[in-house]
Amino acid sequence: MNPRKILVAQGGGPTAVINQSLVGVVLEARRHRGVELVYGARHGVRGIINEDLVDLTQETSHNLELVGATPAAALGSTRDKPDLAYCQEIFKVLQAHEIGQFYYIGGNDSSDTVRIVSEQAQAANYELRCIHIPKTIDNDLVGNDHTPGFPSAARFVAQAFAGANLDNAALPGVYVGVVMGRHAGFLTAASALGKKFADDGPHLIYVPERVFEIDKFLADVKATYERLGRCVIAVSEGIHDASGAPIIASLAKDLEHDAHGNVQLSGSGALADLLCEEIKAKLKIKRVRGDTFGYLQRSFIGCVSDVDQREAREVGEKAVQYAMWGGRDGSVAIQRTGTYSVDYDLLPLSAVAGKTRTMEDHFISACGTDVTDAFRLYLRPLLGSGMPDAFRLRPNPVAKVLNRG
Amino acid sequence: MNPRKILVAQGGGPTAVINQSLVGVVLEARRHRGVELVYGARHGVRGIINEDLVDLTQETSHNLELVGATPAAALGSTRDKPDLAYCQEIFKVLQAHEIGQFYYIGGNDSSDTVRIVSEQAQAANYELRCIHIPKTIDNDLVGNDHTPGFPSAARFVAQAFAGANLDNAALPGVYVGVVMGRHAGFLTAASALGKKFADDGPHLIYVPERVFEIDKFLADVKATYERLGRCVIAVSEGIHDASGAPIIASLAKDLEHDAHGNVQLSGSGALADLLCEEIKAKLKIKRVRGDTFGYLQRSFIGCVSDVDQREAREVGEKAVQYAMWGGRDGSVAIQRTGTYSVDYDLLPLSAVAGKTRTMEDHFISACGTDVTDAFRLYLRPLLGSGMPDAFRLRPNPVAKVLNRG
Repeated sequence: MNPRKILVAQGGGPTAVINQSLVGVVLEARRHRGVELVYGARHGVRGIINEDLVDLTQETSHNLELVGATPAAALGSTRDKPDLAYCQEIFKVLQAHEIGQFYYIGGNDSSDTVRIVSEQAQAANYELRCIHIPKTIDNDLVGNDHTPGFPSAARFVAQAFAGANLDNAALPGVYVGVVMGRHAGFLTAASALGKKFADDGPHLIYVPERVFEIDKFLADVKATYERLGRCVIAVSEGIHDASGAPIIASLAKDLEHDAHGNVQLSGSGALADLLCEEIKAKLKIKRVRGDTFGYLQRSFIGCVSDVDQREAREVGEKAVQYAMWGGRDGSVAIQRTGTYSVDYDLLPLSAVAGKTRTMEDHFISACGTDVTDAFRLYLRPLLGSGMPDAFRLRPNPVAKVLNRG
Repeated sequence: MNPRKILVAQGGGPTAVINQSLVGVVLEARRHRGVELVYGARHGVRGIINEDLVDLTQETSHNLELVGATPAAALGSTRDKPDLAYCQEIFKVLQAHEIGQFYYIGGNDSSDTVRIVSEQAQAANYELRCIHIPKTIDNDLVGNDHTPGFPSAARFVAQAFAGANLDNAALPGVYVGVVMGRHAGFLTAASALGKKFADDGPHLIYVPERVFEIDKFLADVKATYERLGRCVIAVSEGIHDASGAPIIASLAKDLEHDAHGNVQLSGSGALADLLCEEIKAKLKIKRVRGDTFGYLQRSFIGCVSDVDQREAREVGEKAVQYAMWGGRDGSVAIQRTGTYSVDYDLLPLSAVAGKTRTMEDHFISACGTDVTDAFRLYLRPLLGSGMPDAFRLRPNPVAKVLNRG
């Protein structure tokens, strides 16, 4: 292996902390005597095939630290999902620039790219160390306790629902908040961490790990509304019927598909609006409001978990350490070792690539619309320090004089 | 005047800091020897006519401080806009409970309620001090430099656009963010404070103070997209055509009206979706995404301006001081006295009640889709301390070897 030149890139949806992983790679690599140049590719694998590269060896440590603390992908990202031919092009460029180590920060699609490029290099007998660095707000990478980016997005969702619950208590009605997560309900379930008092919302949580039935949904909302005079609901954008068809597909006129063949679920308020209309029409409740958290939840600049920051930095650092001393390609994974502490592991690329983790059964309550205490214990330490707290007035009713109300 | 019993209530949309004003009233009133009981009405004026009152004299100072730091309305709020008959009922209950001072925290509808109740008391020769305490994220109260609640919502909007801009730079396309504000564009304009570098978004800002023309909008988006390869747009929910008809009205099937006769603009993703569809259809741009900030922007629990917190607390305190020593009814107003400092004033209720402030012309740039430096200087100190900052990598391109891209 020739570690003189290394290349790092970022793929998939931006997160609040993906730049920490980038900075972890760059600063750790620059400490190594054998490393001569650290390149970054602009806009992920697309930047590689276009030779759109930047020299990160010429960036100051100071600015790297500031960029690390900035959300979204500083190198730019891409939605391209390379096939074999695309990966061969990637490999050609890596060869031409005499790259000895390739680091790709991304989700399970990105890990699959790393796997294919790794196989190309082996087939060509070219010494290339290929390391995948985990990142996704969906928390859907197998083999990881959790993935960098998820804790900060979960912090946003928990805080958003804490506020939405207070708002809904002040002006009662039904509130629907739609949260990202196509297959995995982790981020939607994070809404439960915004709850403090027993009657706080979210009162109902719908994750894609359970079949969504509109009649059951309406009955749940009706029961909560009759009990509390209000109802706060967290819904995953990925909810689907028994056949697996997305609920949103039943109403969207022009379904947009991305390069991976997936229906576009985010960037539209359609699902929230549909559910609100159903509630108004069928339950005759007047005040029904829906919000789609959309892009706010993945790169809001003021809502970052410090635990997430640290771990995202460490997976970048560990990636370089594994590349230097691990002797094999792989995907860096986070393992929980205590309450709360973590260690890292290098999994085979094939163990992670293209696989999707969903919420484990023991995290979802039997009723299917709430999380378990096991999930609360799992998520709480990830949200980081300084989580805001909500307080309420204690009841001290005044005796009526006119006997009204 | 009999200041032995006082009553405070909260009206209109919740904000991040309205509870600070409540706590300002309660703690300041409890310091006064002549005050025997401090009552709160649950859910604003509705709680008064229903005699749904709580005794805030039996609440600990400690818990009041914690409630003060919690967003949304701790007493509950209401959308009721009392007419004369309603105000007569309010007055009957205040009389029955021998209330000597009435404090109502709210926007211009609430100030109008205070004005009518004040007139009722005078007509009945009943000694009642009536004070309106300003609150609204729309910043649309006349006679005020700004209103409590606006700075924290503006902080959310600025941070949201800072993040959305980074996200959009990482995965280029068109992004539309729809912001609250029916008549006043202040909150939408706050998006400009999320900008740092010259090519940062929001690149286009549409406020209700200017007529919205869809053809001009599409031409603006096209020009920006051709120049930068991307476009971030801030749009007020209140944008309207030359006749004053809301743009959203042209597409919404079932327009919902509130008790004030206003069309419901929030709680639906329809406007963002409509604009995105127009851009996709007319400009043939593929990646177009829209978010509606909805309720997140007014009571997000983790995004509060400390300046706003302090001022909201002070307007509550000052309200009690004016009631005790001012000798007349009125509306507390914030006046700017330095860069940055404020003082307070007690305006006649008729000077504020039912009036709507909109963005002054010198805050809107000549092109109509940006703010002026005067607006940036106006808003910056209100956002408070600890505003997160965004950094980017400096360009250090690597020479091409294969001459691709």
